[in-house]
Amino acid sequence: MSKTIGSISIIGSGNVAHHLGKAFAGHIKINSIYSRNKETANELAEDIHAFHANEIKDLIPSDLILICVNDDEIYSVLEQIPENQSVAYSSGSVGLTELPHRFDLGVIYPLQTFSKARNVDLFEVPFFIEATNEVFAQQLFDMAWLLSRKVIFATSTDRKNLHLAGVMVNNFVNHLDFLAEQFLKQNSMEWDYLKPLIKETAMKLQSKRPFEAQTGPAVRGDQKTIERHLSMLQGETKEVYQILTESIQKHHKA
Amino acid sequence: MSKTIGSISIIGSGNVAHHLGKAFAGHIKINSIYSRNKETANELAEDIHAFHANEIKDLIPSDLILICVNDDEIYSVLEQIPENQSVAYSSGSVGLTELPHRFDLGVIYPLQTFSKARNVDLFEVPFFIEATNEVFAQQLFDMAWLLSRKVIFATSTDRKNLHLAGVMVNNFVNHLDFLAEQFLKQNSMEWDYLKPLIKETAMKLQSKRPFEAQTGPAVRGDQKTIERHLSMLQGETKEVYQILTESIQKHHKA
Repeated sequence: MSKTIGSISIIGSGNVAHHLGKAFAGHIKINSIYSRNKETANELAEDIHAFHANEIKDLIPSDLILICVNDDEIYSVLEQIPENQSVAYSSGSVGLTELPHRFDLGVIYPLQTFSKARNVDLFEVPFFIEATNEVFAQQLFDMAWLLSRKVIFATSTDRKNLHLAGVMVNNFVNHLDFLAEQFLKQNSMEWDYLKPLIKETAMKLQSKRPFEAQTGPAVRGDQKTIERHLSMLQGETKEVYQILTESIQKHHKA
Repeated sequence: MSKTIGSISIIGSGNVAHHLGKAFAGHIKINSIYSRNKETANELAEDIHAFHANEIKDLIPSDLILICVNDDEIYSVLEQIPENQSVAYSSGSVGLTELPHRFDLGVIYPLQTFSKARNVDLFEVPFFIEATNEVFAQQLFDMAWLLSRKVIFATSTDRKNLHLAGVMVNNFVNHLDFLAEQFLKQNSMEWDYLKPLIKETAMKLQSKRPFEAQTGPAVRGDQKTIERHLSMLQGETKEVYQILTESIQKHHKA
């Protein structure tokens, strides 16, 4: 049986560090926190009764250092950590072999969007695990299993694909909602009216496939409504309308 | 005080007829149902203990006939209804003056996506009301108020704008989710992994504005990740990625 991870130190104090830190604190001793942002690091450290380290070298020795920083900072953070220290990071898009090799290097990637103000039920969030060796991978798997019933071993390529799909269903969807908000604003109407529809659009997909859930003028071939909508739009919102309508019609034609 | 609507007959047996019929049946006598589709009309009639009429002319006389059919069928349905009969329809995109005038003609438009398999909480769904005269408009308002605490008088133009915004946050969002599903499928990965993210993306917007909720490589200006993502995509999914990334960057530049 592999040794379990009994203590963690965390580098980072953003949304992911905040949520993982709080969640793991219920199960594993969080020794210390370091972040470039002293203020949010201090808040998180206080929240989970951990030591707030002023430098990476001041972190309390722990079974694992969990790096929750932006993708482009992982490399420089890693350089400051002794090579015999076990390390995992939380990024979807940084491949394991893109980083300098160490014996215990791994990934624990939750496919979710986090913001500090919102509690997220981690229990159904998928966590993707990868590591430089199987024993360490199993340790990270067991650790993620403390939080979620959806823990999956996945390669760096899998993870990058998931991250890209995540950009589409989160970043791009959110931006469409933004464009719709802008359009209503230009026409002196309240954004709030859209909230129940935005919610139900997502809830429907918890039990239906997007192909079956598709409705509207594009899939109905209602060219009259499409033409009228295009005449009501301008700039890139019009372009977005056009390309997405064409794409719907391409995929739904008999 | 205006007379209240005490009885309804419904034309249509699709998703909207199904949901409005069931919801109103808890408050108002639904006399009869007619639909071209005899099977679903019969189901709905049985569900809400209404008479299933074989022809429009066989509908039981009622204070209101509620038309819940496709936009392009409203005109021909209206022609078969005596001119002194009060009528309302549920469409977002058909303007009141685009239809032949009658004394009591109105609209009761719920901004929501309906499917028979899913219960929707109508209480927070906005209903938009318009009519050819104020007394009838108030009657429709009161009727909608039985189901929802968000009832709003709105012009045909307002309604068309809302419908267009609805296409963006529902039809187009759903299609982005479809494209993400397709991408994962091509890479032998499960669609299910995306469900918690899709849900949280929508839930976040119940309390945050889309502009503040925006995250990801485009808003961070992470050109390296964007380039890699583009190299992983093909065809119109790539085009969609490009145009939405440009649009995010345009709106979020300092």
